[in-house]
Amino acid sequence: MAVVLTDAEGLEVLVAERCLELLAASHLGRIAVTIGAVPAIFPVHYRLVDGHIVFRTGQGSDLHAASANSVVAFEVDDVDPSWAEGWSVLVVGVAREMRDDNAIASALDQAPNLWDAGVGSHVLSILPAFVSGRHFVHAA
Amino acid sequence: MAVVLTDAEGLEVLVAERCLELLAASHLGRIAVTIGAVPAIFPVHYRLVDGHIVFRTGQGSDLHAASANSVVAFEVDDVDPSWAEGWSVLVVGVAREMRDDNAIASALDQAPNLWDAGVGSHVLSILPAFVSGRHFVHAA
Repeated sequence: MAVVLTDAEGLEVLVAERCLELLAASHLGRIAVTIGAVPAIFPVHYRLVDGHIVFRTGQGSDLHAASANSVVAFEVDDVDPSWAEGWSVLVVGVAREMRDDNAIASALDQAPNLWDAGVGSHVLSILPAFVSGRHFVHAA
Repeated sequence: MAVVLTDAEGLEVLVAERCLELLAASHLGRIAVTIGAVPAIFPVHYRLVDGHIVFRTGQGSDLHAASANSVVAFEVDDVDPSWAEGWSVLVVGVAREMRDDNAIASALDQAPNLWDAGVGSHVLSILPAFVSGRHFVHAA
Protein backbone atom coordinates (compact mmCIF):
# COMPACT_ATOMS: atom_id res chain seq x y z
CA MET A 1 0.00 0.00 0.00
CA ALA A 2 1.43 3.36 -1.01
CA VAL A 3 1.83 5.87 1.77
CA VAL A 4 0.83 9.42 0.82
CA LEU A 5 2.75 12.09 2.70
CA THR A 6 1.22 15.52 3.08
CA ASP A 7 2.77 18.82 4.12
CA ALA A 8 1.52 21.40 6.66
CA GLU A 9 -1.00 22.69 4.10
CA GLY A 10 -2.33 19.25 3.26
CA LEU A 11 -0.64 19.07 -0.14
CA GLU A 12 0.64 15.69 -1.25
CA VAL A 13 4.43 15.55 -1.03
CA LEU A 14 6.08 13.95 -4.05
CA VAL A 15 9.02 11.67 -3.32
CA ALA A 16 12.38 12.56 -4.88
CA GLU A 17 12.18 9.72 -7.39
CA ARG A 18 8.83 11.01 -8.69
CA CYS A 19 10.18 14.57 -8.84
CA LEU A 20 13.05 13.40 -11.05
CA GLU A 21 10.65 11.48 -13.30
CA LEU A 22 8.60 14.64 -13.77
CA LEU A 23 11.72 16.72 -14.41
CA ALA A 24 12.88 14.19 -17.01
CA ALA A 25 9.50 14.18 -18.77
CA SER A 26 9.18 17.98 -19.00
CA HIS A 27 11.11 20.39 -21.20
CA LEU A 28 9.75 23.79 -20.14
CA GLY A 29 10.74 25.18 -16.76
CA ARG A 30 11.13 28.54 -15.10
CA ILE A 31 14.34 29.78 -13.51
CA ALA A 32 14.57 32.42 -10.79
CA VAL A 33 17.71 34.53 -10.66
CA THR A 34 18.74 37.88 -9.23
CA ILE A 35 19.77 40.71 -11.53
CA GLY A 36 21.31 43.64 -9.67
CA ALA A 37 19.54 42.70 -6.42
CA VAL A 38 16.18 42.44 -8.20
CA PRO A 39 14.58 39.02 -8.60
CA ALA A 40 13.53 37.80 -12.04
CA ILE A 41 11.94 34.69 -13.56
CA PHE A 42 12.49 33.45 -17.10
CA PRO A 43 11.02 30.50 -19.00
CA VAL A 44 13.69 27.97 -19.94
CA HIS A 45 13.82 25.17 -22.49
CA TYR A 46 15.77 22.33 -20.89
CA ARG A 47 16.59 18.65 -20.77
CA LEU A 48 17.51 16.51 -17.80
CA VAL A 49 20.89 14.95 -18.60
CA ASP A 50 22.66 12.67 -16.12
CA GLY A 51 20.71 14.27 -13.30
CA HIS A 52 21.60 17.82 -14.38
CA ILE A 53 19.23 20.42 -15.78
CA VAL A 54 20.85 21.53 -19.04
CA PHE A 55 19.79 24.62 -21.00
CA ARG A 56 21.21 27.21 -23.36
CA THR A 57 21.31 30.96 -23.17
CA GLY A 58 22.06 33.52 -25.83
CA GLN A 59 25.27 35.50 -26.02
CA GLY A 60 25.17 38.51 -23.71
CA SER A 61 21.81 37.55 -22.26
CA ASP A 62 20.71 38.70 -18.83
CA LEU A 63 19.94 35.08 -18.01
CA HIS A 64 23.48 33.96 -18.76
CA ALA A 65 25.03 36.77 -16.74
CA ALA A 66 22.71 36.23 -13.80
CA SER A 67 22.72 32.46 -13.59
CA ALA A 68 26.35 31.46 -14.10
CA ASN A 69 27.83 30.38 -10.75
CA SER A 70 24.73 31.51 -8.87
CA VAL A 71 22.32 29.60 -6.67
CA VAL A 72 19.10 29.49 -8.65
CA ALA A 73 15.62 28.10 -8.24
CA PHE A 74 14.22 26.05 -11.10
CA GLU A 75 10.59 25.04 -11.26
CA VAL A 76 8.51 22.76 -13.47
CA ASP A 77 4.77 22.38 -13.15
CA ASP A 78 1.61 21.26 -14.85
CA VAL A 79 -1.44 22.98 -13.44
CA ASP A 80 -5.01 22.76 -14.67
CA PRO A 81 -6.10 26.27 -15.83
CA SER A 82 -9.02 26.11 -13.40
CA TRP A 83 -6.57 25.35 -10.57
CA ALA A 84 -8.48 22.15 -9.77
CA GLU A 85 -5.42 19.92 -9.96
CA GLY A 86 -1.73 20.23 -10.54
CA TRP A 87 1.78 19.44 -9.54
CA SER A 88 5.00 21.38 -9.25
CA VAL A 89 8.60 20.40 -8.71
CA LEU A 90 11.17 22.82 -7.31
CA VAL A 91 14.91 22.44 -7.68
CA VAL A 92 17.55 24.57 -6.01
CA GLY A 93 21.16 24.34 -7.08
CA VAL A 94 24.16 26.15 -8.48
CA ALA A 95 24.03 26.94 -12.18
CA ARG A 96 27.38 26.61 -13.91
CA GLU A 97 28.44 27.28 -17.45
CA MET A 98 29.79 24.18 -19.16
CA ARG A 99 33.13 25.02 -20.77
CA ASP A 100 34.59 21.65 -21.72
CA ASP A 101 33.82 20.94 -25.38
CA ASN A 102 33.68 17.18 -24.88
CA ALA A 103 31.33 17.49 -21.92
CA ILE A 104 29.12 19.90 -23.86
CA ALA A 105 29.00 17.58 -26.87
CA SER A 106 28.16 14.62 -24.66
CA ALA A 107 25.41 16.51 -22.84
CA LEU A 108 23.87 17.82 -26.06
CA ASP A 109 23.94 14.31 -27.55
CA GLN A 110 21.61 13.33 -24.72
CA ALA A 111 19.41 16.42 -25.11
CA PRO A 112 17.41 15.84 -28.29
CA ASN A 113 15.87 18.94 -29.84
CA LEU A 114 17.16 21.26 -27.14
CA TRP A 115 16.80 24.80 -28.37
CA ASP A 116 19.97 26.14 -29.97
CA ALA A 117 20.59 29.69 -28.77
CA GLY A 118 22.82 30.38 -31.77
CA VAL A 119 26.34 31.63 -32.36
CA GLY A 120 28.13 32.55 -29.14
CA SER A 121 25.53 30.82 -27.01
CA HIS A 122 26.29 29.20 -23.69
CA VAL A 123 25.37 25.83 -22.21
CA LEU A 124 24.46 25.93 -18.54
CA SER A 125 23.91 23.11 -16.13
CA ILE A 126 22.23 23.00 -12.73
CA LEU A 127 23.11 20.17 -10.36
CA PRO A 128 20.10 19.85 -8.05
CA ALA A 129 21.08 20.31 -4.40
CA PHE A 130 17.48 20.26 -3.17
CA VAL A 131 14.50 18.75 -4.97
CA SER A 132 10.93 18.91 -3.71
CA GLY A 133 7.52 18.48 -5.23
CA ARG A 134 3.84 18.77 -4.46
CA HIS A 135 0.65 17.46 -6.00
CA PHE A 136 -2.65 19.14 -5.23
CA VAL A 137 -6.31 18.54 -5.90
CA HIS A 138 -8.78 21.28 -4.98
CA ALA A 139 -12.41 20.42 -4.45
CA ALA A 140 -14.77 22.32 -6.75
CA MET B 1 2.77 51.34 -38.81
CA ALA B 2 3.59 49.51 -35.62
CA VAL B 3 7.18 49.74 -34.50
CA VAL B 4 8.61 46.49 -33.15
CA LEU B 5 11.31 46.99 -30.52
CA THR B 6 13.82 44.25 -29.92
CA ASP B 7 16.24 43.67 -27.06
CA ALA B 8 19.96 42.82 -27.16
CA GLU B 9 19.08 39.19 -27.93
CA GLY B 10 16.70 40.08 -30.74
CA LEU B 11 13.56 39.23 -28.78
CA GLU B 12 10.53 41.42 -29.40
CA VAL B 13 9.94 43.77 -26.46
CA LEU B 14 6.30 43.99 -25.39
CA VAL B 15 5.08 47.45 -24.44
CA ALA B 16 3.71 47.94 -20.92
CA GLU B 17 0.12 48.15 -22.12
CA ARG B 18 0.42 44.76 -23.84
CA CYS B 19 2.07 43.26 -20.74
CA LEU B 20 -0.88 44.37 -18.61
CA GLU B 21 -3.34 42.94 -21.14
CA LEU B 22 -1.57 39.59 -20.94
CA LEU B 23 -1.48 39.74 -17.12
CA ALA B 24 -5.21 40.48 -17.06
CA ALA B 25 -6.02 37.61 -19.41
CA SER B 26 -4.01 34.98 -17.51
CA HIS B 27 -4.75 33.39 -14.16
CA LEU B 28 -1.75 31.13 -13.60
CA GLY B 29 1.58 32.72 -12.74
CA ARG B 30 4.75 31.82 -10.91
CA ILE B 31 6.16 33.75 -7.99
CA ALA B 32 9.80 33.79 -6.89
CA VAL B 33 10.52 34.34 -3.22
CA THR B 34 13.39 33.68 -0.83
CA ILE B 35 12.95 31.26 2.06
CA GLY B 36 15.81 31.37 4.52
CA ALA B 37 18.21 32.76 1.90
CA VAL B 38 17.27 30.02 -0.57
CA PRO B 39 15.29 30.97 -3.69
CA ALA B 40 12.02 29.22 -4.48
CA ILE B 41 9.34 29.39 -7.17
CA PHE B 42 5.68 28.49 -6.69
CA PRO B 43 2.75 28.39 -9.09
CA VAL B 44 0.09 30.92 -8.15
CA HIS B 45 -3.57 31.30 -9.06
CA TYR B 46 -4.24 35.02 -9.41
CA ARG B 47 -6.38 37.78 -10.80
CA LEU B 48 -5.36 41.26 -11.88
CA VAL B 49 -7.51 43.68 -9.85
CA ASP B 50 -7.11 47.46 -10.22
CA GLY B 51 -3.59 46.92 -11.50
CA HIS B 52 -2.61 44.67 -8.58
CA ILE B 53 -1.85 40.96 -8.76
CA VAL B 54 -4.14 39.39 -6.14
CA PHE B 55 -3.77 35.83 -4.87
CA ARG B 56 -4.46 33.74 -1.81
CA THR B 57 -2.20 31.61 0.32
CA GLY B 58 -3.02 28.97 2.91
CA GLN B 59 -2.64 29.48 6.62
CA GLY B 60 0.93 28.87 7.73
CA SER B 61 2.16 28.38 4.18
CA ASP B 62 5.77 28.96 3.21
CA LEU B 63 4.54 31.19 0.42
CA HIS B 64 2.65 33.46 2.81
CA ALA B 65 5.59 33.73 5.18
CA ALA B 66 8.07 34.38 2.40
CA SER B 67 6.09 36.80 0.27
CA ALA B 68 4.46 39.19 2.74
CA ASN B 69 6.28 42.53 2.63
CA SER B 70 8.99 41.14 0.37
CA VAL B 71 10.12 42.16 -3.08
CA VAL B 72 9.03 39.32 -5.32
CA ALA B 73 9.22 38.43 -8.99
CA PHE B 74 6.01 37.29 -10.65
CA GLU B 75 5.96 35.77 -14.10
CA VAL B 76 3.28 34.76 -16.56
CA ASP B 77 3.97 33.06 -19.86
CA ASP B 78 2.56 31.01 -22.67
CA VAL B 79 5.21 29.01 -24.47
CA ASP B 80 4.76 26.45 -27.19
CA PRO B 81 6.00 23.05 -25.87
CA SER B 82 8.39 22.84 -28.80
CA TRP B 83 9.79 26.26 -27.87
CA ALA B 84 8.95 27.56 -31.36
CA GLU B 85 7.00 30.55 -30.10
CA GLY B 86 6.03 32.13 -26.82
CA TRP B 87 5.76 35.17 -24.65
CA SER B 88 6.53 35.97 -21.05
CA VAL B 89 5.74 38.90 -18.80
CA LEU B 90 7.78 39.66 -15.69
CA VAL B 91 6.59 41.80 -12.80
CA VAL B 92 8.67 42.91 -9.84
CA GLY B 93 7.02 44.49 -6.84
CA VAL B 94 6.38 44.30 -3.14
CA ALA B 95 3.87 41.69 -2.02
CA ARG B 96 1.70 42.83 0.85
CA GLU B 97 -0.96 41.04 2.81
CA MET B 98 -4.34 42.74 2.54
CA ARG B 99 -5.78 43.23 6.03
CA ASP B 100 -8.69 45.59 5.54
CA ASP B 101 -11.89 43.54 5.29
CA ASN B 102 -13.60 46.04 2.98
CA ALA B 103 -10.60 46.19 0.66
CA ILE B 104 -10.41 42.38 0.61
CA ALA B 105 -14.12 42.05 -0.13
CA SER B 106 -13.88 44.62 -2.91
CA ALA B 107 -10.84 42.92 -4.46
CA LEU B 108 -12.40 39.46 -4.30
CA ASP B 109 -15.60 40.80 -5.88
CA GLN B 110 -13.46 41.66 -8.87
CA ALA B 111 -11.64 38.31 -8.87
CA PRO B 112 -14.16 35.77 -10.13
CA ASN B 113 -13.38 32.14 -9.33
CA LEU B 114 -10.14 32.97 -7.57
CA TRP B 115 -9.06 29.90 -5.64
CA ASP B 116 -10.17 30.02 -2.01
CA ALA B 117 -7.31 28.86 0.20
CA GLY B 118 -9.72 28.01 3.02
CA VAL B 119 -10.12 28.92 6.66
CA GLY B 120 -7.34 31.14 7.95
CA SER B 121 -6.13 31.93 4.45
CA HIS B 122 -4.51 35.21 3.46
CA VAL B 123 -5.07 37.55 0.54
CA LEU B 124 -1.88 39.02 -0.91
CA SER B 125 -1.43 41.77 -3.41
CA ILE B 126 1.53 42.79 -5.55
CA LEU B 127 1.68 46.31 -6.91
CA PRO B 128 3.90 46.09 -9.98
CA ALA B 129 6.92 48.39 -9.71
CA PHE B 130 8.53 47.07 -12.89
CA VAL B 131 6.76 45.31 -15.75
CA SER B 132 8.51 43.90 -18.80
CA GLY B 133 7.66 41.39 -21.46
CA ARG B 134 9.10 39.56 -24.42
CA HIS B 135 7.71 37.69 -27.40
CA PHE B 136 9.87 35.24 -29.28
CA VAL B 137 9.67 33.13 -32.41
CA HIS B 138 12.40 30.59 -33.06
CA ALA B 139 13.01 29.35 -36.57
CA ALA B 140 12.69 25.59 -36.94
